This record gives sequence, structure tokens and C-alpha cells, in this order.
Amino acid sequence: MKYGFFDDANREYVITRPDTPAPWTNYLGTEKFCTVISHNAGGYSFYNSPEYNRVTKFRPNASFDRPGHYVYLRDDETGDYWSISWQPVAKSLDEAKYEVRHGLSYSKFKCEYNGITATKTLFVPKGEDAEVWDVVIENTGDKPRTISAFSFVEFSFSHIQSDNQNHQMSLYSAGTAYTEGVIEYDLYYNTNDFEGFYYLASTFSPDSYDGQRDNFLGAYRDEANPIAVENGKCSNTVKTCYNHCGSLHKQFVIQPGEKVRFAFILGIGKGNGDRLREKYQDLANVDAAFQGILDHWEERCSKFQVQSPNAGLNSMINAWTLYQAETCVVWSRFASFIEVGGRTGLGYRDTAQDAISVPHANPKMTRKRLVDLLRGQVKEGYGLHLFDPDWFDPEKADVKPSKSPTVVPTPSDDDKIHGIEDTCSDDHLWIVPTICKYVMESGEESFFDEQIPYANGGTASVYDHMKAALDFSAEYVGQTGICKGLRADWNDCLNLGGGESAMVSFLHYWALQEFIDLAKYLGKEDDVAKYTAMAEGVQKACEEHLWDEEGGWYIRGLTKDGDKIGTAQQAEGRVHLESNTLAVLSGAVSQERGEKAMDAVDENLYSEYGLHLNSPSFSTPNDDIGFVTRVYQGVKENGAIFSHPNPWAWVAEAKLGRGDRAMKFYDALNPYNQNENMDKRVVEPYSYVQFIMGRDHEDHGRANHPWLTGTSGWAYFAVTNFILGVRLSFEGLIVDPCVPTNWPGFEVQREWRGAKFNIKVENPNGVSKGVASVTLNGVAVEGAIPVQAQGSVNEVVVVMG
Amino acid sequence: MKYGFFDDANREYVITRPDTPAPWTNYLGTEKFCTVISHNAGGYSFYNSPEYNRVTKFRPNASFDRPGHYVYLRDDETGDYWSISWQPVAKSLDEAKYEVRHGLSYSKFKCEYNGITATKTLFVPKGEDAEVWDVVIENTGDKPRTISAFSFVEFSFSHIQSDNQNHQMSLYSAGTAYTEGVIEYDLYYNTNDFEGFYYLASTFSPDSYDGQRDNFLGAYRDEANPIAVENGKCSNTVKTCYNHCGSLHKQFVIQPGEKVRFAFILGIGKGNGDRLREKYQDLANVDAAFQGILDHWEERCSKFQVQSPNAGLNSMINAWTLYQAETCVVWSRFASFIEVGGRTGLGYRDTAQDAISVPHANPKMTRKRLVDLLRGQVKEGYGLHLFDPDWFDPEKADVKPSKSPTVVPTPSDDDKIHGIEDTCSDDHLWIVPTICKYVMESGEESFFDEQIPYANGGTASVYDHMKAALDFSAEYVGQTGICKGLRADWNDCLNLGGGESAMVSFLHYWALQEFIDLAKYLGKEDDVAKYTAMAEGVQKACEEHLWDEEGGWYIRGLTKDGDKIGTAQQAEGRVHLESNTLAVLSGAVSQERGEKAMDAVDENLYSEYGLHLNSPSFSTPNDDIGFVTRVYQGVKENGAIFSHPNPWAWVAEAKLGRGDRAMKFYDALNPYNQNENMDKRVVEPYSYVQFIMGRDHEDHGRANHPWLTGTSGWAYFAVTNFILGVRLSFEGLIVDPCVPTNWPGFEVQREWRGAKFNIKVENPNGVSKGVASVTLNGVAVEGAIPVQAQGSVNEVVVVMG
Repeated sequence: MKYGFFDDANREYVITRPDTPAPWTNYLGTEKFCTVISHNAGGYSFYNSPEYNRVTKFRPNASFDRPGHYVYLRDDETGDYWSISWQPVAKSLDEAKYEVRHGLSYSKFKCEYNGITATKTLFVPKGEDAEVWDVVIENTGDKPRTISAFSFVEFSFSHIQSDNQNHQMSLYSAGTAYTEGVIEYDLYYNTNDFEGFYYLASTFSPDSYDGQRDNFLGAYRDEANPIAVENGKCSNTVKTCYNHCGSLHKQFVIQPGEKVRFAFILGIGKGNGDRLREKYQDLANVDAAFQGILDHWEERCSKFQVQSPNAGLNSMINAWTLYQAETCVVWSRFASFIEVGGRTGLGYRDTAQDAISVPHANPKMTRKRLVDLLRGQVKEGYGLHLFDPDWFDPEKADVKPSKSPTVVPTPSDDDKIHGIEDTCSDDHLWIVPTICKYVMESGEESFFDEQIPYANGGTASVYDHMKAALDFSAEYVGQTGICKGLRADWNDCLNLGGGESAMVSFLHYWALQEFIDLAKYLGKEDDVAKYTAMAEGVQKACEEHLWDEEGGWYIRGLTKDGDKIGTAQQAEGRVHLESNTLAVLSGAVSQERGEKAMDAVDENLYSEYGLHLNSPSFSTPNDDIGFVTRVYQGVKENGAIFSHPNPWAWVAEAKLGRGDRAMKFYDALNPYNQNENMDKRVVEPYSYVQFIMGRDHEDHGRANHPWLTGTSGWAYFAVTNFILGVRLSFEGLIVDPCVPTNWPGFEVQREWRGAKFNIKVENPNGVSKGVASVTLNGVAVEGAIPVQAQGSVNEVVVVMG
Repeated sequence: MKYGFFDDANREYVITRPDTPAPWTNYLGTEKFCTVISHNAGGYSFYNSPEYNRVTKFRPNASFDRPGHYVYLRDDETGDYWSISWQPVAKSLDEAKYEVRHGLSYSKFKCEYNGITATKTLFVPKGEDAEVWDVVIENTGDKPRTISAFSFVEFSFSHIQSDNQNHQMSLYSAGTAYTEGVIEYDLYYNTNDFEGFYYLASTFSPDSYDGQRDNFLGAYRDEANPIAVENGKCSNTVKTCYNHCGSLHKQFVIQPGEKVRFAFILGIGKGNGDRLREKYQDLANVDAAFQGILDHWEERCSKFQVQSPNAGLNSMINAWTLYQAETCVVWSRFASFIEVGGRTGLGYRDTAQDAISVPHANPKMTRKRLVDLLRGQVKEGYGLHLFDPDWFDPEKADVKPSKSPTVVPTPSDDDKIHGIEDTCSDDHLWIVPTICKYVMESGEESFFDEQIPYANGGTASVYDHMKAALDFSAEYVGQTGICKGLRADWNDCLNLGGGESAMVSFLHYWALQEFIDLAKYLGKEDDVAKYTAMAEGVQKACEEHLWDEEGGWYIRGLTKDGDKIGTAQQAEGRVHLESNTLAVLSGAVSQERGEKAMDAVDENLYSEYGLHLNSPSFSTPNDDIGFVTRVYQGVKENGAIFSHPNPWAWVAEAKLGRGDRAMKFYDALNPYNQNENMDKRVVEPYSYVQFIMGRDHEDHGRANHPWLTGTSGWAYFAVTNFILGVRLSFEGLIVDPCVPTNWPGFEVQREWRGAKFNIKVENPNGVSKGVASVTLNGVAVEGAIPVQAQGSVNEVVVVMG
């Protein structure tokens, strides 16, 4: 079953049947105002944090994604009413036609019903903390029509707990006021003129309005049948206390063939409603703002575009995977329809991994996130697993939350810094390669010298922060010299404590290689020597203790008692994805063992939906291994297709030179390829998910948790840098593809430090890997392609063979 | 507008129109299993704590109270379906007739529709952690009918945050299994065989079942139109992961005049579903269990029954106010449709105040709560404002919460003990009179000697705990000798810090009087001397510093800079209820000043809905006074009719001997008197509320937060002990009424230490106060009536005059 298609020309996914098996999401906003919205217009907005400063309410995990950002239309001659999005009124699909276009940072809703075609385009203009709803209503019939339009949003009480848990204060904490065309909502206890005010404005002069939710909806009604819409008129009520909404209503008489167009504006900040109502009354300003969003993404996407024989790869890399990766970097991992803001701040490893994917497209945000992470590192070298960057931001540390009368104990600052018992063994290591990639992209070598404080006191250069991370992992090793597992490693559910993690030692090795390259480039000979020796020690320990000769693969680690996890002798948890892929990715192991290990991955972990995290799944609780043994079989970390390490396998196969295998793995996970299998997959086909049910669960193939997964960043990084092979080193641009043997070639357009590179890769002999020649503007190049002049357009031809 | 009536004979409130302006609540359960349920069957169950061990889900503060505990019926000949409660299917009230009887710990739903009369009675049997749904379907027509019945509950993920905030783990944390007539729900990560399992069972053998919510409801549907009911058959799906429900379905052919009867059982504990399904297949066991609930309340209510000329007082005191008070004592203040479990444990002062009302009806729970509170006191004397009694329960302190993979820092034990900066100045004082009342009722004088640890180390007798409380307040005084306000006093929003609280000094004086009586009774002469001197000092400071001569009332306190709060000179916050009522209640002030102060209360604070907390309300923020100045005017602590201190005024007027005034105040607040004013009041008329909008808010008269308010306990205590005047001292039973002059008399039946007292009060001269004679079984009594033999029935005649 399919519900839509990819429109590559417009970078849109077009939903043609709105009755999808789950809400299919989009993210609006490129700066601080964000809306998570479904194709049925359910969802919520927040400013900066999905925990604090929630702007509109959402009821999570109900059978519907409600409430949302709705426009109702009503035929004032018959009283019949509907919504421009299918939900919430949900006219029969036999009598009304709906189309939704999710684009990059905008969504267009279209409804054709009974001679009226209406569209609603939602987006957040750059430079404004507001969401614009550009509404067009067209009379496609042959009689004049009298149509009323109503907006509806339900305002949030600002904090997720105020919305969802305890209404003893919430219900008396806010009020609305009305002035011509603007419902302004005042969070009374927040005395800040910006964060303390939200609004819903219209460019038209309303005929009626409602600020009280229950006046608009009516008793024993909901968003599907609001009494105000049924009556054709709001109650003109604004007041303090209870639940609040933004509904503005106007009646239009529309002649045959005529269109009316107007905008609603939802936003934050006292007085901004009046200002933006004025601004967007000139609809040219709406057009300009929308063009700004198109330009925003054109700029980002144009940094890397590919034309390959794999249409799914092209669609995803040229738009959706970059978009998803950027969404994780900008909005973190806590705002979706699953994660609805109950946590705030940054996951240390999440952000460190996500940020590796977008230095070319969004260097500014990449740099900000790196600074956030370095401030969240303690001087002992490890990262704070979950932290709010505002805690350590000198400009924000003194900002106190707004007053509340609830008598609860005052939390102490010490609670921010966790000890070793809550430390994850991998968090800090991911920043090392990410920092390198950022500087390779930007050329900002002075960043290494920048002084940044540690979270628990003291200051060091970025370069020394990197060393602290590497040194921590060298110190915290177990009896065999392999890194300790601590609270968890990348796998939150593998809780080895003093046991040892193969995955972390391989990651350590990879980070060391990246750092040694840097130290060499910077001429830090002492560090080259020290960390080369450290890397050799890691490599030796890995090869001595982690290879399972009988199975022909790398084990996952050792328990604190020294029992091996992931050997051929074991009936469950025998083969693991993380250790085998990182063994190869890190460069620590030989081609021979690497090939064997990845063959074992293919044989034991592959499915048509991607690679399982481990197999067979655990059925026996074992707290020396960790919580993974207590998770349902085939679910999440226990034998599901956990997406994030799948790209590690693509990189591993690319490094091994096996392009067909790399592409087989890529194609299995690519959601694009599931577009016609939606009754199985359930969630959207333009987004990677956290995990897909594994073969040990009856819903094998069902995908869960779209959008907020490190998969997107790593998928983008793996395809661009290792399959297409267009990547940077400190020396310059490298083109070193590893592709399927049946690819005759491909093209990539890459922008780097202001110069354009039109790269044409030819594969006349049908190889997977190997470069016979490279020319730059017709001249043969040995090694990396150096920086070119700003504004130059350069032709690169690469012949494989 | 009215929606129902009080059925005193059955101790029921009968709702005859289900379209009330808000869900009207009842509480099921008398031990550890609790259900908060509306008259439309919306609501949720929990075991012991509304934060942990939630059994069924609830979506708070949506426009509906859903989901709930529903039974759907379907006419299998026509496909027409409805629910026994009006919601969720909500048949038109023109075609179906609904009646709901909220009784004490049970609710009966009845629906007559299209020739079928169905009833559903929900209650929690004593001795079982389960809710029984006793269902009867009767064919009242003249043709055989084929009717399908379906249960529906949505199982909770156990913790409120798992239900409402972050579904990243929740959705994979549970599963259902089916065996004949039982859907058992396994919270997979909770390995406890009791808390880790919930179930829904039926006494019939089902024709079909559903354990997956979204299979039962269907896509883009909700509780109003489940696909399973529409189809006449469930999907027979149980599995792990996602959202779970309990639906069991059976088709019945019912002959004209025939009834079918069966039960559903919702509960907790592995295997209990099978056991109770078996048990309740014998419907006599259902009848016996229901009778057990009636007996439970008959036993409690019979301890104090009144027949007076005030019908509303009789209804409320004989059933509803005791019931509400007991609800607060047993379930604390955190489970309602407003407070939905986001906090757990006990509020110190809440429980200390609530417990004063029920020692006669529930001595066991009163004692338990006193022990909880004494364990939650620190050795410095103050109480922990909000704490979980399990923290300090030796039997529970070592119980660890069930494992979770979420990597969050481990909280430290120190976080449980707050310092002086989070201490409320009144919390600890309320336990002193409550302990005295408990021992007067029970005669358990050894309780004073019981050794109980302090929360922060050390152990002391109960008697010494009481002294520590009194000593703390004597120590923490400001410049004038009046108690400091600290974080807050009884008024959470009056945050005086080092400023001084009149209310607390008067409360201190009252507690001292109660304690001195105790010390005298126990013959502790040194303590009598010490605390009498302390009380004299308090009294002197109060009279010197708190009387406002110009206004003729007591001020509310002083800011840390010594500015008076609540004087005739002030434009806002001029007169306050707490200080003036407690001044009189405590006995600290003269009759003359007391009368003036209470006249000022009447003149400035009275309205037809009760007494305002303060007037005029504050409009100017002043952080030296506190958050109260930042609350909307007329709302909550800022000039609403805050119910809880209203009974203090009844006591004060009773102590002054002004029975007409006491009854005027009582009648104004009594929700019974609002039964025909429901479009204004909104919430149920059988429950006190936290507050009613004051005259400075446009919704003046609208009541908010039924059930969980200290009003109920204090209303019960004030009416029984001071208006009816039937109260205990250490010497015995006292009858000392203060009633309206137009009362010719009243009768009270009181049980005390196993003896019955039939008390007949005569008021031949139409006085308010004063007792001319008392006879016990025909013999004149001077002073208190002493303890009588267990099982004796005693006639007491009191003549006022």
C-alpha cells in the first residue's frame, strides 16, 4: 500500500491519501521557533526548548494527533463545514480530495470539496519567531459562495508538566486579550515580555473570535465538531484562567473563479502579533518570507548534490537525509510525536554524532553544538550524558526560571554534574572526529586554540579537550586493556559497568586515528608519538581479546567477570553489529578479519529491512550484560533493526572495497524503498527511524520513531564520504568512491570554502573501488584536491579502475 | 439549572442529566486500589500511588474526561451501538435516558435505550485489589433481542510520565496475553509478580477479545466509535509493545422480560484475574462484596449522625463531608481530574489537617497518617513539606524501583530532606492538635510514649516530637516575636521569608493550648509551666503587634522590613480571613476584639458563595508579600473564596457564641445549597472545592477543584465539634452547641469507644449558645460525660439556655 510519492523537483513528499497508518511528520522552523506537524495538521510549536516555552498544546499518544494548527471552512448557506487538512473534521474521502506536500521546513495542505479548493501553507519565516499560515480559498464552481474561515490552536501552559500532569496551577496561569485581529495570550506568571506572550493573529479583520478553548469547542465536543464552527460564529470571549485558544473568524463572499487569500500568524513575544499582522497584510511579504525558506534550503542542499543510478539514494541524499540530520542538530532529539519534550537539552553522544553530518551545510550550528559539547565535558574527560547547554552558557547561566508558587525544594547546582557511575563510555569520543571534520570543512584552524571551560571548572583549548577525551578512555580500561563499559556505551541497554566494551575500544581507535592525523597536520610531534603508541596499544588489545576464532567475528565485550559476550558458543546475543562494523570502520583490523567479520554480519544480521543490532535476541535476563536482556525480543536494542549502526556497516563495506554489499545494506534500510509497503512500515518513507521490529517480533518490518535518530546524520556521512567517497582531509578534497559494480558512474556537485566542484566519476570497468585518475579542470591531480579560489567553478573528472 | 438530587436514604447523589458542565467525580476503593471516575465513566485507576502503579490511562485536561471504564452494547440485528454510561458514545438525550448514582465508594450507571435497560455498578471489593463491574442487561420490550457487550479500558504504562510525556520506552514496555476470559497485561520491565501485572477479566466466556488499543478503536477513531464495536467483534489480538486495552466481548440473546447479569473485573497482580473470574462467576460473591462496601460506610457513618433543621447540613455531615474528608486522608491530595498524579506522597500540613476529622470513623488510618507525619518531621522540629511516607517506612525503604534503561543521574538520599529555605512555617504545628484528638477518640495514651525516628536521624517519643514542633515555632520568630513566615505559611502564596505571619502565631497559640491540656492531663507539671509561659509570650506579642486599631481587625503579618500587611490604610489586601479567624479559634484574643475582627470578616469578606480569603485582591506585585500578589485578581489565594479557612470562621463564630452568623457562613459555602445553580458553579454539589472565583473575577461563583481540599476535613470538624458542639476532651464527651437561634433543637447519634450516645439537644428559649443542663440516662451530669461501657446505649439530653 502506498500513500504518496517523492516529488524530487520540489524537494517535497506528496501525500495523496491522508488516512496513513500513523501521523507523518514534518518540522517547521530553521532558527528558534519550531513546529512539529503531521500531514493532518496535528502537532505543536515551541520556542527553543520543547520542555519549556511550548507554544501550542499536544496530547501525546492518544489515538489521534491532536490538537493541531487548524483552519475550518464553513458553507454559510448550508451550515456544512470541513477543515483544510483532512483531520479534524475528516470528511469522507469519497466526497473530498486532500493533498499534503511536506517540503523542507514547510507543509502545504490542500482540500477540494464541493466546489471550493483551499490551501494552507505553514512555515516559519526566517528572522521571525512565528509561524505563518498562508491560506487561499478558491471558488471553482459557477455560483457565488459564502464561506466562513476559522483558525484554531490551543495555547500551551508553557511547560510540558503544566500541560500534561498537574493543572492545579496551570488552569489559572494565563489569559487572553483581544485587539483588532489579534488574540494575545499572556502567561501571567512569566513576566518576560517575550517568552511570557504568545498570539494568534489574522491579516483580515475578524467577524468574531474566541480565546477560551471550551467556548470554541463547546461542551462534550472536540476538534472534530466545534460549536463555534457549527454556529458559524465564535463567542467573542477572552478572559483569564482555564484553557485558551486562538480562533479568529471571517466570512467571505467568493465569486465563481475568484480566490481570497489571507494569513494567520502564530507566534511569541508581546506586541509581535500586531507587528506581523501589519507586515503580512501585504501578501508580498508572505511570498518573500516563503521564498526565504526555499532559499535557505537551496543554499544548504546545493553544498552537495548527487546524480547516481540509484534514484532512492538521490532523493534521500539531495534532500531528505540532510534535512533529517539538520533537524536533529538544530532541535536535538526531544521533540517529535513520540518524544514530546519530557526531556530537554542535548544528549552528549547524540549531538556529537549528529553534528558530524552537517558542517558543510550548516557550519554555524555545527560550531555552536561543538562549543555546547565542549562546555558539557568535565575536566576528567567524559561528557555529561544529558545536559542543558544553557547551564554552561555564560550569557544564560544567570537567567532564573519564572516564579512559581509551587513549594518544591530548590535543586542544587551539583546535580548537573554526574559522577562516573552515570557516565557512558562512548559519549566523549565522538567529539574528536566531529571537531576534525568541522575544521576540514571550514578551515577555521584557530578553533583548536580556543579556550573553553570544562563543566566542572578549569579551562582548556579545544585541542586539549580532545586529548582529555582520548586520555579518559585510555585510563578507564578493564583487565584486558579494553575500555570499560561503565553505565552504558553507545548501546544504552548494554550496561557492563566494570566489564569491557569492544565497541568503545574500536571507537577509541578511530578517534585516535583522526586525532593523530590532526596532530601531524599541526606538527605536534610529541602528541603524534604519544597517541600513536596509545593507538597501537588499543589495536593490540583488540586483536588479542576480541576476535572470536570459532565464529570468525569480533565479540561485543566482556562482563565484569570476564565472560565473553557475542561468541559462536552462545545461543543468544551471538553476533553484534556495533563491534564488527566499528572494527572495520576504525581501521584497527586486517582486511582478512574485516571481511570475515562483515560476512558474519551479512549472514547473521541482514534482513530485507536492514541489519539487526544483534542476533539471536536475548531471552534470558542477565544483568551482567545489561538491560538489553530484559527488552522484548526483536524490539529496540534486543534484536531489532536498530538503524543507527547500519551506516557503520556501509562505511565498513566501503572501506573493505565491497561496493555491492555496501549498497545492498544501504538499500535495505532506505525508507524510500518502502514507499509501497506502508501497511507494514506504518511511518513515513522519507525519514529514517530509530528502529524497525526485528525478525523475532511478530511485527517484523514495522518502523518506529521517525526523525529523531542518529541514523540520519550517519547515513548522510556514510553515503557522501564513503560510498560516493567525496570527503575532506586536512590536505584537501578527496574523491574515493566505493560503489556497486553495475554503476557506470555518477556526478556530484560539491561546494567547499566558496568554490564549486562539478565532480564526474566514471567507472568504465565496473569496479567497486579504486581510482585510476583524477583531473581538476583538465589537469591531473595526485593526492587531495587543494582549496580553490572563492567563487571558482571547477570540473573534476575521476576515473575508477 | 440542576442536574440531579441528593438521595439521603441511600447516601447517593443521583445525576439525572449526564450533560453536566464538568465531569462529576467519585472515588472507588477503600484500601489500596483506587479509581477516580466521573459520572460519564471517564477516569483512571491506580494502586497505592497515583504517580506510580497507575492501572488505567487518563488524558488530563482534554475537552473530555477520557478514556474510562466503559461497557458498550450493540444491537446485533441493526448494528446500532451505545454505552451504558452516556459517554463515550453519547446517544441523544432525546432517545436514551441515563441515570448515575454516585454512592460512597461505588457508582451505578443506568441506561434505558430502545427497549433495553442496562446497569453497570462499579466498586472495589474490600480485601481485593480489583474493581468489579456488575452489569445487568434487561430486555424490557416484547421481542427477543441479540445484544453484544464489550468492555473497554486502556492500560497505563504505570508511571505518569510514561503515560504522558516520553513514549520512547513506554510503547515497548508492556504486552498482553489472553486466556479464557482474562486479558493479562504484563509491565515487562517490572519483574514484581504483583505490581508488574494488571488484568481485565469477565465472568462470561468471551466470543472475542482485544489487547491492543488501536485494534479495538481502529484508525482515525476514538472511544466514541470503536471499530470493534461497529463490527460487532474484536480482532482477537494480544501482543507485546504499543498501547494496550482490555476488551472482552460476548453476544447474548435476551428474551422479553429476561435479564442477563455478568461481571468484568479490572485489577492488579499476576494470576488474580483467573482467581477473581472464578470467584465472581458465583454472582452471590458479587452481591456479598457490594454489601461489604455498604457495611464499610455504614460503620463509619454511624459513628456520627445528625438530624437538624438544616437539611443540607444533615446530608453533608451524615455522608458527603465525612466521605470527602476520608478520601483526602486515604488517597492524599494528588489524584483527581485536576491533580492527576504528577506529585506523590503527602503534603505535610494537608495530611495533618485532614487527619483531624476522621479519628472516630477511621482510627487506623488516622494513626497511620500520624506515624507517617512524625517520621517526616526533622529533629529541628519542622515537617518535610512534601514527602513520600515510603521513604521513612522501615518496611519499604529498601524497595528499589523497577529497572529502566533510561540513563539519568541517580538522585541522592540527601534530596529528601529540605533545609529551612524550603520550610513552611505552619506544617509541623497542625500535628499537635491532631495527635490529641486521635488519643481522645481512641484512648490510646501509650501512643505519646511511642518512639518514632526523625527524618534526619535520631528518635524521640511522640510527645517529644510534639514539643519539638512547638519549640521550632518559638525559636523562629521575627523582631516583634511573631513567627517568621519562611517559604510560606498555610497560604502557599504568602512568601514572607524573614517577615512575620500572624496566622502562624495564632496557630502556634492554639497548638500550645491543646498541648498544655495534654501536659496537664499527663501530669507533666514542668511542661505545663514551660508551655504556659510560651503561650503567654505568644499572646502578648499578638495583641501588641497584630491588632489594627483603625480597622478593628488583626493584620495578616509583617514583611521582612516590618511593613504591616492587612491594615485599614491599605488599598489592597486589607482584610484577611486566616489571621482573624485563627485569632478567635486559638483562644488568644478577647471576646471584644474577637467580635470586632469577625464583624470585619463578615463586612469585608462575605459573599453568597462563602468568605473571600482576602479583600480587596492584590493588583500590584510585591515580592515582599509573596506570589499572592502575582495571581489573577479574584482567583485562588488572591481574593477568591478559598474554601479551607471558611470553617475556621464557623469555629470562630461558634466560640464567640454567634450561632446565626456561624450558620450564615456555613450555608454560603455549603455546595448542597448550590444544587440548582449549576451553570454558575459548574462542578458537583456534593463536594467542597479548593476555591470559588471571587468577586474580582468575572466568573464569580464558579467552583474549582472538587474533592482534594482540606475544607472537607475542617468543615466536618467545625460542624460536629463546634456548631453541633459534640466533641471530646481528655476528660470525656462534651456537648456544647452553638446553633442558630431559630433551631428548636437537634439530635446526634455518636459512638465513642464502643458505646452509643443518643444525644437530644433542646433549645426551648431560642439561644445560640449555653447549656443549662445535661443528663446521661436520666441522671444529671456536671462537666464531661465519661467513657461508658462497650456496647452500652446511652441517652443524653442537653437543654440549652
